[in-house]
Amino acid sequence: MTGAGVTGAGVTGAAVTGAGVTGAGVTGFGLERLSLNQATVKHLSLADAAALCARHGISAIGVWRDRVAEVGLDHAVATVRTAGLHVSSLCRGGFFTRADAEGYRAALADNRAAVAEAAELGADTLVLVCGGLVPGRRDLGLARRMVADAIGDLVPAVQRVGVRLGIEALHPMFCADRSVISSMGEAVDLALQFPADAVGVVVDTYNVWWDARLTDGIARAAGRIVGYQVGDWVLPLPRDTLLGRGHVGDGVIDFRPITAAITAAGYAGYVEVEIFNADVWAASADQTATKVQERFAAIL
Amino acid sequence: MTGAGVTGAGVTGAAVTGAGVTGAGVTGFGLERLSLNQATVKHLSLADAAALCARHGISAIGVWRDRVAEVGLDHAVATVRTAGLHVSSLCRGGFFTRADAEGYRAALADNRAAVAEAAELGADTLVLVCGGLVPGRRDLGLARRMVADAIGDLVPAVQRVGVRLGIEALHPMFCADRSVISSMGEAVDLALQFPADAVGVVVDTYNVWWDARLTDGIARAAGRIVGYQVGDWVLPLPRDTLLGRGHVGDGVIDFRPITAAITAAGYAGYVEVEIFNADVWAASADQTATKVQERFAAIL
Repeated sequence: MTGAGVTGAGVTGAAVTGAGVTGAGVTGFGLERLSLNQATVKHLSLADAAALCARHGISAIGVWRDRVAEVGLDHAVATVRTAGLHVSSLCRGGFFTRADAEGYRAALADNRAAVAEAAELGADTLVLVCGGLVPGRRDLGLARRMVADAIGDLVPAVQRVGVRLGIEALHPMFCADRSVISSMGEAVDLALQFPADAVGVVVDTYNVWWDARLTDGIARAAGRIVGYQVGDWVLPLPRDTLLGRGHVGDGVIDFRPITAAITAAGYAGYVEVEIFNADVWAASADQTATKVQERFAAIL
Repeated sequence: MTGAGVTGAGVTGAAVTGAGVTGAGVTGFGLERLSLNQATVKHLSLADAAALCARHGISAIGVWRDRVAEVGLDHAVATVRTAGLHVSSLCRGGFFTRADAEGYRAALADNRAAVAEAAELGADTLVLVCGGLVPGRRDLGLARRMVADAIGDLVPAVQRVGVRLGIEALHPMFCADRSVISSMGEAVDLALQFPADAVGVVVDTYNVWWDARLTDGIARAAGRIVGYQVGDWVLPLPRDTLLGRGHVGDGVIDFRPITAAITAAGYAGYVEVEIFNADVWAASADQTATKVQERFAAIL
């Protein structure tokens, strides 16, 4: 495996036509590694977000499925290719922890559709937010087994099209309702149960920065890191703790040791700036893109 | 060490005069193990909280320092003894991560005072909320080293009076501003650096329930568990996430496996119900005490 091989594009050989910079072509850790996750400019359509990236010289984008559905997959693929953008991730699959068999089958079907979309878009990974407790149940072990089973069920489809699933540990404050996978170590333990060409982990600073065992977890994830998302932890937390992220540098996270660990683990893919924040969403998208680049250059 | 020896009272031999049930006297896991943490009836003075416990046949109380300061230590000691109450914990010491030497010295002095108060009250443990990031610094390792140094500095004073410090892992959502000790495993690793008669851990369900490694952490804490606090995780989280706790059974936490792990680790002390919740505080204290007992009997 080459240094760049940890990205989906490198491992799977999925063609990323039209991309100015492919994962395999990334050599430094400058602005060419920057990808803008669409959630940072939540109010823009995919076309507008792609145009924003092109205007600012940002070479990759993290795409959200609702924005793909809005225009249809073929159109979405054409949009990112015409803009010369690499798709660093498709957000998102997961939410496997359903209370009934029908719900579980529906979740699997939806995830298979997401896998197909990720393949068409040439995305390095399909990000998984695995799901919280099973509704009406308090059994964390049950929920975690259900997540593992679901990922196992998806592996054949994933391998057929050459996409990698990226298990994202969410912050423990989301354990009940969004993801029972609550730490980097747990995400790695889960990923290691499956073939490396099918399942990896996504590291998101907002979710894992607090963990004393983070460096160990990242080291164990060598060869499995399929995405790196950055956003800062800003106090006080807002009413909706999903929206507590800030621009890199506005909060308390020390990005350098995390980035160093990820680099040491061989990750050479894109670094997505993903900020869920009402104030950022209220700003002009061009201002946001400029600030994202300035902070990225200064801190990452 | 006897089964009951893991409580401060058992290990240190600190006399708990006037207590109807001492830690060493607890044999079952019924209501006689219940302790009411004063924070659950936040608006009551120590005298009123003690009277509430006596009225409801609750034999132990978790005491807060501000309520002790309000009446003076001698008066506080007399109050709990007259009421026949055992003091399961004194809340709280900690907040060691100060930016300047003077602040650090002041924190240590305050913690030494808290140790002396805990000894006078015959408390099983002085609960430590260790402190968040050092103000103006993003270095988690620095903050964690400062916490370890401070605990080391306190050990002689603690051993002199026969109190045990109880390191409480707080939920990772409080890592930045309240405690850089964010998981059970981390709390245990820290406690194990010090003599067992001086430093243990407090397990608080609200803070640690999400952790896939919780059972391992608790098992490693055998002989070091000096307190067990229960409160439920209720969705949605309120604006102030400190207040997201609910009565046992109102939320998503599965208490039985946690309790089983703690029992297996040899803990035979009190179980404190500690609920920070604006609605609970608005209820009548007698209603709250009744509900606490009902839920304790049904679930714990």
